[in-house]
Amino acid sequence: MDLYNGLLNKEKRAIARMISLVERNDSEALEVLSRLYKFSGNAHIVGITGPPGAGKSTLTDKLAKNLRKEGKKIAIIAVDPTSPFTGGAILGDRIRMNKLSTDPGVFIRSMGARGHLGGISKATHAAVKILDIAGYDYIFIETVGVGQSEIDIVKTTDTVIMVMVPGLGDDIQALKAGIMEIADIFVVNKSDRDGADRTKVEIEMMLDFSCSQWRPPVTKVIATIDKGIDELLANVSEHKDYLVSSGAFLSKRILNSEAEIIGLIKDKIIDRIVNASSNKNDVKMYAERVAKREIDPYTACAKLLSKSVKEVNDGEGKKN
Amino acid sequence: MDLYNGLLNKEKRAIARMISLVERNDSEALEVLSRLYKFSGNAHIVGITGPPGAGKSTLTDKLAKNLRKEGKKIAIIAVDPTSPFTGGAILGDRIRMNKLSTDPGVFIRSMGARGHLGGISKATHAAVKILDIAGYDYIFIETVGVGQSEIDIVKTTDTVIMVMVPGLGDDIQALKAGIMEIADIFVVNKSDRDGADRTKVEIEMMLDFSCSQWRPPVTKVIATIDKGIDELLANVSEHKDYLVSSGAFLSKRILNSEAEIIGLIKDKIIDRIVNASSNKNDVKMYAERVAKREIDPYTACAKLLSKSVKEVNDGEGKKN
Repeated sequence: MDLYNGLLNKEKRAIARMISLVERNDSEALEVLSRLYKFSGNAHIVGITGPPGAGKSTLTDKLAKNLRKEGKKIAIIAVDPTSPFTGGAILGDRIRMNKLSTDPGVFIRSMGARGHLGGISKATHAAVKILDIAGYDYIFIETVGVGQSEIDIVKTTDTVIMVMVPGLGDDIQALKAGIMEIADIFVVNKSDRDGADRTKVEIEMMLDFSCSQWRPPVTKVIATIDKGIDELLANVSEHKDYLVSSGAFLSKRILNSEAEIIGLIKDKIIDRIVNASSNKNDVKMYAERVAKREIDPYTACAKLLSKSVKEVNDGEGKKN
Repeated sequence: MDLYNGLLNKEKRAIARMISLVERNDSEALEVLSRLYKFSGNAHIVGITGPPGAGKSTLTDKLAKNLRKEGKKIAIIAVDPTSPFTGGAILGDRIRMNKLSTDPGVFIRSMGARGHLGGISKATHAAVKILDIAGYDYIFIETVGVGQSEIDIVKTTDTVIMVMVPGLGDDIQALKAGIMEIADIFVVNKSDRDGADRTKVEIEMMLDFSCSQWRPPVTKVIATIDKGIDELLANVSEHKDYLVSSGAFLSKRILNSEAEIIGLIKDKIIDRIVNASSNKNDVKMYAERVAKREIDPYTACAKLLSKSVKEVNDGEGKKN
């Protein structure tokens, strides 16, 4: 398959293939992405996060459906947090059953963390770029916003929507504290439930303590019956305008690029040092000695490092 | 302060100081830890995890209290997930208010992720070693078990206790799927609530599909009134015996040591490449060019890498 022209021609099969290949860290696909990168930058990237059971998937689907009516092309990336340990078919099943997926203007993809060594963030970034190049107007990244790596992914979007539900009470205080500062828009979903107004007031009160230029709106929504979706889309649009008019758009993207570059460097070095087959046995040997208290882990690290850095350097020297 | 002898003499002030220093990546403290490492390995390390609001803190306190009656020395490390974004005083407050902290045979410490670049895991590992050397019989690591980095910490303990509560229903299915495989013991806390038996049965049913040698017990507990705590301690003791008799103890510790060494290598390289002041400006410059689509992130990464690897190598050469 000619990935370069396939992607430029916005062919769905080429897009899907490209994403699979970057997930597997395929060097040819990354090379294509590298050459096409200049065509990216036009999509608006929206992170959707919140605790499990907040109804993020339904909300995302409704947002996508309404944007489709305006003729926008939509991509949805669902980051599946269960995958490091299990097959993680939870989000996968949802996606397969989804009516949206038969719409030619919609692209849906589930990405798991399984098999990646901290690489889910990298693969997600790459998928966003691929979809951006392929001309999708909005790219939604949906994730459970509770862990550090999940938050890292959502942080690198243009607009972050935080989905809350009434009645979680004290249980989400800890979550709230951790995610408050990354949210651009708050949603109180399932707002026909008891306590929706109280949850809204609580969020507003927390926002009163913030001194950032942009005041996140707090919108009550019942995603299942489409209530509040238009208002939420207006919120997204306002935030987009704010980003452009304030100059925050570029400064945010620079920060995101910085995080991405640092992540790439991290992955690449770990890949070379830890996963290189010549070193795997060394790591295992040292691990056994550390467990038996024959050597301490810091000394083991230093020994492995001095050996590996030489090899990495030799590798780099050949390439440049 | 003489950290080496202070720690050998199990002085609380030296222990606290050592932990603060390793959190800040202090090279002298790590050197001391490296030299004393051979005295570690005697503590039983217990991870306590579960969703927010499951009552992990109360449970840990009760476990600690009961073990104190047997004359055991107890350390508790509370990993605070909110810290990357806020001051994260939630767990801190709890700890300051805790009666246990006046007991000379108990050491309590809260560790935040703030200011660390993926370093919380490293600092926690180091703190465990310090407390192990200082002669604590049980070291509890308490964390919200929902994100990848939090799970990574808990995975490196001898015994993992997973704390559930009745009535979370479908909302915790996703969590369950992700954490099932790391749990050695299940607790249904707040088991006076409706649905406790159903939750226990659901967990047991999931365990029926597992084919591992150790069948995790599922114990109903009401931590607030001390109900089931003795049974839970018996579970911990049985699991400890199982680890020793099956040989899993050493093999698990070897795996943990491997994970720790890999983490150390990761941190060290990132620290040198990304955080080195000479490179910080380069990273920023490339980030801006990437955001403006003048260069793609993969090429930026390669350019930074070829420059930095040379420097790291020169540094290693001098040291070895």
